[in-house]
Amino acid sequence: MMSFFVLMAAALLHSGYESEREKMSPGEAIELAQPEDWITIPAEDLLLVDLEGGKRIAFQLAPQWAPVHVANIRRFADSGYWEGASVYRVQDNYVAQFGLLESDRPNPDGVIDNPPPEYVRSAEGLDLTLLGSPDPYAMVAGFSDGWPVAIYEDGTASLTHCYGTLGAGRDLSPNTGSGAELYAIIGHAPRHLDRNIAIVGRAVDGIEHLSSLPRGSGPLGFLVEEKGEKASLIVSIRLASSLPEDERPSYQYLSEDSAAFARYLDVRSNRYDDFYDVPAGGVALCNVQVPVRPSTDD
Amino acid sequence: MMSFFVLMAAALLHSGYESEREKMSPGEAIELAQPEDWITIPAEDLLLVDLEGGKRIAFQLAPQWAPVHVANIRRFADSGYWEGASVYRVQDNYVAQFGLLESDRPNPDGVIDNPPPEYVRSAEGLDLTLLGSPDPYAMVAGFSDGWPVAIYEDGTASLTHCYGTLGAGRDLSPNTGSGAELYAIIGHAPRHLDRNIAIVGRAVDGIEHLSSLPRGSGPLGFLVEEKGEKASLIVSIRLASSLPEDERPSYQYLSEDSAAFARYLDVRSNRYDDFYDVPAGGVALCNVQVPVRPSTDD
Repeated sequence: MMSFFVLMAAALLHSGYESEREKMSPGEAIELAQPEDWITIPAEDLLLVDLEGGKRIAFQLAPQWAPVHVANIRRFADSGYWEGASVYRVQDNYVAQFGLLESDRPNPDGVIDNPPPEYVRSAEGLDLTLLGSPDPYAMVAGFSDGWPVAIYEDGTASLTHCYGTLGAGRDLSPNTGSGAELYAIIGHAPRHLDRNIAIVGRAVDGIEHLSSLPRGSGPLGFLVEEKGEKASLIVSIRLASSLPEDERPSYQYLSEDSAAFARYLDVRSNRYDDFYDVPAGGVALCNVQVPVRPSTDD
Repeated sequence: MMSFFVLMAAALLHSGYESEREKMSPGEAIELAQPEDWITIPAEDLLLVDLEGGKRIAFQLAPQWAPVHVANIRRFADSGYWEGASVYRVQDNYVAQFGLLESDRPNPDGVIDNPPPEYVRSAEGLDLTLLGSPDPYAMVAGFSDGWPVAIYEDGTASLTHCYGTLGAGRDLSPNTGSGAELYAIIGHAPRHLDRNIAIVGRAVDGIEHLSSLPRGSGPLGFLVEEKGEKASLIVSIRLASSLPEDERPSYQYLSEDSAAFARYLDVRSNRYDDFYDVPAGGVALCNVQVPVRPSTDD
């Protein structure tokens, strides 16, 4: 039988934890991270899309999930294929899409015109930190190497369409899209696209430059020139690795294996800070954006 | 034992249904609706927010869920309280907030300064059409009188924070917000706000005029005047019922009790149209936006 004092100590510890919990916002949970919890994104995985007016969106590419599409995208970027590209489709609560639209520019050497689907991969051996809440779209959901991931009953896994996700536009199947036309999610997560399209990355900075663009009034949000709706010109699309080292932006994501991430996930599921009366008791996968920050040396 | 012919007929019928399913988009499912499936929103429940440049957002108010807040909002609108209001906060993937911000304008007669919470109501007697997929935030989710609704284990029910949801801004509890400062969701559904804040309505038209506004660079997306960020002026906030009858916009929502809604819900959960290879097998509540259209006489 446990002694009274041990029980009291446990109760005190517990209440201490609870009151600490009460005061913590997701941002404060992230601040608990140790330097080694932050993982730097390789420069060759960072795609920089520069709009006019100094507006930059930085995307992290996902070569682990869509290797052929990502290899294509690197070739498009390095060859200058995207010169003159624009954001030509902005559909409210859905996507901003960019590229050359209808162009007969030939693909650069080495580009695979129609890559394999790369919509899913085997879930076997995948390291997964569980979300801990039910996911309406999958058997189970969680995080793996900094990415939100869904696992299905057939043993496959996919990245998921969350806010900021970058995907490869395509026509009807079996076309999978070469990666020349890309879209970013700017609304509520359209998870029904998971397993139906190649996810190639996600925004780590500047998505607001796409999400705040005027919407197109054409079908599917295409901008209608005749109505004075102008596609936003893209100054350049480059890999960070193509810039001189001292000009490269760099970002780090918080490892889901860290205690800070566990605390962050807890407070995303249950807010105890002052504003909240009732903790939710659960959370949707796309409401737990993996924390990202500009790289620091600390 | 069933005869071969009956089995054959059943198989044919079934395959007919499947192939019909294959071709149907959510929009096509909605087109199946009969005239009586469309329910007109009362003019006194329609709040019209007019920005400069002829940009109008129409919100349906939810007096069934937040009667005191909605009564306040009607008084604010009818008394001209909101003259000079603006959209002063735009936080990416979260909210656009509007009203007078820091004003010492006295509340109009009849306004309750601090209404009861109205965050939840009893689920008893609530007519619910089930979503049919798990909801990470509630025991069960579905639709009731045209609203997305969550039901909790304690027997309460709430409206839910989806894209376009309108809520009453508030300070820390026990303040519940008078309804003078309102916010609309312009990003992924922040469902952790459910049960913690009074939902007073949802956008039925024009939400893109809020979601495409430039983001504020201040904390929480507040616009920073010193940086040249301008709050968007609001020309007027009025109830449709205050306009002459022939100038009133009018909208209808699709009853969730209709066969068309059932089909719509099915194809939101499982896309069989040509673009899709794999139906999702489930759907999140906020990905099933209740269909709304301008009223017609058909």
